[in-house]
Amino acid sequence: MGEYVKVAVDAMGGDNAPAEIVKGAVEAIQENSKVKVYLVGNEDAMKKELAGYQYPEEQLMLVPASEVIETAEPPVMAIRKKKDSSLVKALYLVKDGTCDAYVSAGSSGATLVGGQVIVGRIKGVERPPLAPLIPTENGCALLVDCGANVDARPSHLVQFAKMGSIYMENIMGVRNPRVAIVNIGAEEEKGNALVKETFPLLKNCPDIHFIGSIEARDIPAGMADVIVCEAFVGNVILKLYEGVGGTLIKKVRNGMMSSLRSKIGAFLVKPALKETLKDFELEQYGGAPMLGLNGLVVKTHGSSKSVEIKNSILQCILFKEQKINEKIKEKISIQD
Amino acid sequence: MGEYVKVAVDAMGGDNAPAEIVKGAVEAIQENSKVKVYLVGNEDAMKKELAGYQYPEEQLMLVPASEVIETAEPPVMAIRKKKDSSLVKALYLVKDGTCDAYVSAGSSGATLVGGQVIVGRIKGVERPPLAPLIPTENGCALLVDCGANVDARPSHLVQFAKMGSIYMENIMGVRNPRVAIVNIGAEEEKGNALVKETFPLLKNCPDIHFIGSIEARDIPAGMADVIVCEAFVGNVILKLYEGVGGTLIKKVRNGMMSSLRSKIGAFLVKPALKETLKDFELEQYGGAPMLGLNGLVVKTHGSSKSVEIKNSILQCILFKEQKINEKIKEKISIQD
Repeated sequence: MGEYVKVAVDAMGGDNAPAEIVKGAVEAIQENSKVKVYLVGNEDAMKKELAGYQYPEEQLMLVPASEVIETAEPPVMAIRKKKDSSLVKALYLVKDGTCDAYVSAGSSGATLVGGQVIVGRIKGVERPPLAPLIPTENGCALLVDCGANVDARPSHLVQFAKMGSIYMENIMGVRNPRVAIVNIGAEEEKGNALVKETFPLLKNCPDIHFIGSIEARDIPAGMADVIVCEAFVGNVILKLYEGVGGTLIKKVRNGMMSSLRSKIGAFLVKPALKETLKDFELEQYGGAPMLGLNGLVVKTHGSSKSVEIKNSILQCILFKEQKINEKIKEKISIQD
Repeated sequence: MGEYVKVAVDAMGGDNAPAEIVKGAVEAIQENSKVKVYLVGNEDAMKKELAGYQYPEEQLMLVPASEVIETAEPPVMAIRKKKDSSLVKALYLVKDGTCDAYVSAGSSGATLVGGQVIVGRIKGVERPPLAPLIPTENGCALLVDCGANVDARPSHLVQFAKMGSIYMENIMGVRNPRVAIVNIGAEEEKGNALVKETFPLLKNCPDIHFIGSIEARDIPAGMADVIVCEAFVGNVILKLYEGVGGTLIKKVRNGMMSSLRSKIGAFLVKPALKETLKDFELEQYGGAPMLGLNGLVVKTHGSSKSVEIKNSILQCILFKEQKINEKIKEKISIQD
């Protein structure tokens, strides 16, 4: 068989580290023989977790790291000072070519900063965005950027659109993905200064299938495949998805428990409801890739359980096989 | 009895005009003897609608207007050219002191522009925001600004916070309302340029109870009473509320209809569920006031039915009785 897709996993990052991270890594190599995981973290802790599992040992490598970056630490300082942290060492494994990809449920700030300063940008990419998949009525859409570059410029958004299109086409199999810019009205003349400047650039970009503005109300309905916006707005969208979803489901649950009649009904609808609502959980989509770096950097939710870690590791295979970065290099260097 | 609260209602604005608007006006005067409605629009059409109702005639006045501003028309031009439109004539009734308030389900753009150029700002108010109530887990919160002033400056947001606090305290009865600024993290140093500049101004403002940043995920949970943000972000929040809510409820419904077992369950949970979910409908809160004008301007949803028109008319009573504008004048002129 060919060479492994090698993934550096920060075993110490996230609310459920190291137990769920190690478990997810084990599940990934149990499920797929193409991937090799480099688990980075406290060696004793990792070994203790691994003791309970059976797995193909040639697909797992332990890389000791003595420090941990906490979520609350200022990212730039943490990256600079904690050279022997699991997060920094895992990023260096990508930087030096040992690994193809990096997965962490740890500090978002440190991953975003480290992705840029340690792994580095593809030549021509101005700002690498964080691009999670979000659920829609009949599938999902890619939200670029959801938090990496606040106060972005129009040229950045055009690159987001190109990179997002490459991702949706090659990873999600969406042909000719529809690109839309988040706006407060459908008309071209609406919007803030950034959107007004960006709109004509997207309209005239030959590499993408631009369908115009999208109002936030139409995002969950699935009216576009690649949703372009500045990071502040993207972050609000991502988090409000979670918030409104969570509150509504709580309300549905309370409503069902409010009378004897409805309790009986709840018992009957529960299995069907669980199935339908699963499609709308952000967690099922694994981590968010940071696009445009010399290697793949994936940030998963801080609260990730093993299934999310496993999915994040496995998505790295397709990213490499589909040569996403080579395609980004081509598109970005030709036009910019 | 004392003087009426006089409300100019644009009978021709909105998807369901004039039928639902006229019906809402009739219901308002049937329900409350303190209010007098000035219905502005095509006289024949209004009379035809009114023919079917019994109502206290001294509380209704018809004001003929020959033109209608359509939703798609560019607002500034429409306001300037259609002097005999129902929307413009209704605004002039507030401007010249005939009425205390204005209610329209018509063009948002024309209402926002007309509110500023016809009704005019309270002295000292830099930008009048549009401030709808949005549902939360246990009540509601005021979102300022949801669409009036894109690319706002920090001083504008401080005024939004003050005016929003006055509204929540006096109209909704929330003592010492908690004010938060929408941000992408809880820490003071996070955010875009606007938020970073605004944060210390809010922190040092003696007139409000500032509790810091709020992430979008915590808005539906009800973590603040007054949610301050720039209009682009506010518009995204308002519309994503609608979008995620609508899509999720559709998914719940589909889930319930997916098997015989769940259909029976659905029949049993339906009444209880309807009751709980009602709290989470944006429509029940009536229209959004535009704060800081010399008079009250209320914009209701384009799709408003009579109940929303009625609620929007009735909320004008409290606005006048609680002397909201006098309180705004006091707070704004002292500090700014």
